Amino acid sequence: MRSREEINNLTDEYIGSLGFPAVPAGLYGPIKYALDAGGKRLRPALVLMGYNVFADDVERALPAAAALEMFHTFTLLHDDIMDNAPVRRGAPSVHSKWGANTAILSGDAMMIGAYKLLEEVPHFPAVFREFNKLASEVCEGQQMDMDFEGRDDVTLDEYMEMIRLKTAVLMAGAAKIGAIAAGAPAEDAEAIYRYGIELGLAFQLQDDYLDTYGTPETLGKNIGGDIAEAKKTFLAITAMEQAGDATRRAILATFGDNTHPLRQKVDRIRTIYSSLDVPELTLAAVERHLGAAAAALDSVGRETGALRETITTLRNRNK
Amino acid sequence: MRSREEINNLTDEYIGSLGFPAVPAGLYGPIKYALDAGGKRLRPALVLMGYNVFADDVERALPAAAALEMFHTFTLLHDDIMDNAPVRRGAPSVHSKWGANTAILSGDAMMIGAYKLLEEVPHFPAVFREFNKLASEVCEGQQMDMDFEGRDDVTLDEYMEMIRLKTAVLMAGAAKIGAIAAGAPAEDAEAIYRYGIELGLAFQLQDDYLDTYGTPETLGKNIGGDIAEAKKTFLAITAMEQAGDATRRAILATFGDNTHPLRQKVDRIRTIYSSLDVPELTLAAVERHLGAAAAALDSVGRETGALRETITTLRNRNK
Repeated sequence: MRSREEINNLTDEYIGSLGFPAVPAGLYGPIKYALDAGGKRLRPALVLMGYNVFADDVERALPAAAALEMFHTFTLLHDDIMDNAPVRRGAPSVHSKWGANTAILSGDAMMIGAYKLLEEVPHFPAVFREFNKLASEVCEGQQMDMDFEGRDDVTLDEYMEMIRLKTAVLMAGAAKIGAIAAGAPAEDAEAIYRYGIELGLAFQLQDDYLDTYGTPETLGKNIGGDIAEAKKTFLAITAMEQAGDATRRAILATFGDNTHPLRQKVDRIRTIYSSLDVPELTLAAVERHLGAAAAALDSVGRETGALRETITTLRNRNK
Repeated sequence: MRSREEINNLTDEYIGSLGFPAVPAGLYGPIKYALDAGGKRLRPALVLMGYNVFADDVERALPAAAALEMFHTFTLLHDDIMDNAPVRRGAPSVHSKWGANTAILSGDAMMIGAYKLLEEVPHFPAVFREFNKLASEVCEGQQMDMDFEGRDDVTLDEYMEMIRLKTAVLMAGAAKIGAIAAGAPAEDAEAIYRYGIELGLAFQLQDDYLDTYGTPETLGKNIGGDIAEAKKTFLAITAMEQAGDATRRAILATFGDNTHPLRQKVDRIRTIYSSLDVPELTLAAVERHLGAAAAALDSVGRETGALRETITTLRNRNK
């Protein structure tokens, strides 16, 4: 079986070698720019790792891996317009560099490019259905996320359902598409999918945690972005659910108060979170989902190599 | 063979019966709104007509027909953001009714919905490849159209290539996908494609003509929109190519002059166009492309029924 490092190298090399037409440059230039920016490339790795559980010739799954990365990057192009995000992967986002129209159209062409890559994938019709399913669910998750902005009563269950759709189904679908392409038995492909869902949920809760408790130097961005935007994260919703009436009012007042520097606001929120055991509850939830991911792999009657390794990598991540 | 009217009724009934999830309402509501607005539904009809040349059970091609209409409507949602168009099919455009973010995300979900419909189509892998090809070409055409806005030296050849990509390949791909789904021989499917290209080019040149020479009552919109926006249409580019230096300067000056009412500007441009035979040259080009469409059908060794009828319908259209 290939190690995670071998898989990452294969992915990077393949995505780096993808050719795009020279014209229209205004359409394909931004696509190349967005793909070249890199990122974790966890989703294409999940395709190859899922494939590798059932077959050795992982090279055959590379177009599917690249399709998942293209699709993911397309969602970033469009999400960054909707969120008005100026920076992505340490560089100007496509819409802030070229304008929203370019980000819309190049994003559209990226999604179509993802589908084009699927043309070459083994077990294509089944892969195509799985891809369509995850793609529409990701849109549903993004819509729920936008709907939450206007609400103050989002429950933890609703939040978990939103991140399942927005984040986890893409990882789960990636790993399952790898398994399907390798001809995995249906029940094994389903187990791989459950693994991906749990991994994805853990991943998002870690993102929420690190945004408030990470180290700027390792994380590569400032701390407290979610607090600054009063985002409904796992931390904020847990705090609201744990708090009594007085503390709940204090949380809302602190989130709504923009008269002090962000640093002070973050400190205050952290103090409240600590009094409500929010960090411990968050890390326990991460651990619970990582445990469930491992249990899903146990039900696959094969060596799961790099997929299992990824649970450990994720458990220790600080960026 | 089915008449064009029977085909239109089948299409309308099938598209009207498409179900969408109830939630998230913010995602699927605008999709239903955009599809229910109707429009000419020429593209789904082309799928069924293309299918009907080679097979009788046109009902089997309905998902493909709906896919093409969904894809076309998705492009309208995104184009209307880019063009800042307030009205579509006589009703507020999605972005002007719900905002750009909704139009972006519901548009994305529509494109995915189009791919989902393809899951059920006969000869699926070949249909899928054809669909991917036309989808990326439509994006290239839209990019070229946006690139032209900033240029004053667009040639007629460049313009024809732009409308081939932006408009004609979708009609050609629709008819060819119908043919492929019915198991047509490759050379016949290619002839049907050439028919669709010529039909699409004629269709766009008619649009250009009607925008300046149509009747507001039958057209359902005001005349002179292209002149108001100084758009590089077949008419404007032909005029610039026919004109001597002095007339060319007069055209540019008139396009650039916004001190008079639009009505006056349209009259002046029409006078110049007439002096350069622009209306006659445009109608001759329409006729040339409709003739080429008919010739393409002649090379198909079968009755082409409603496809041929469509040439006549288009020749006589005034809206």
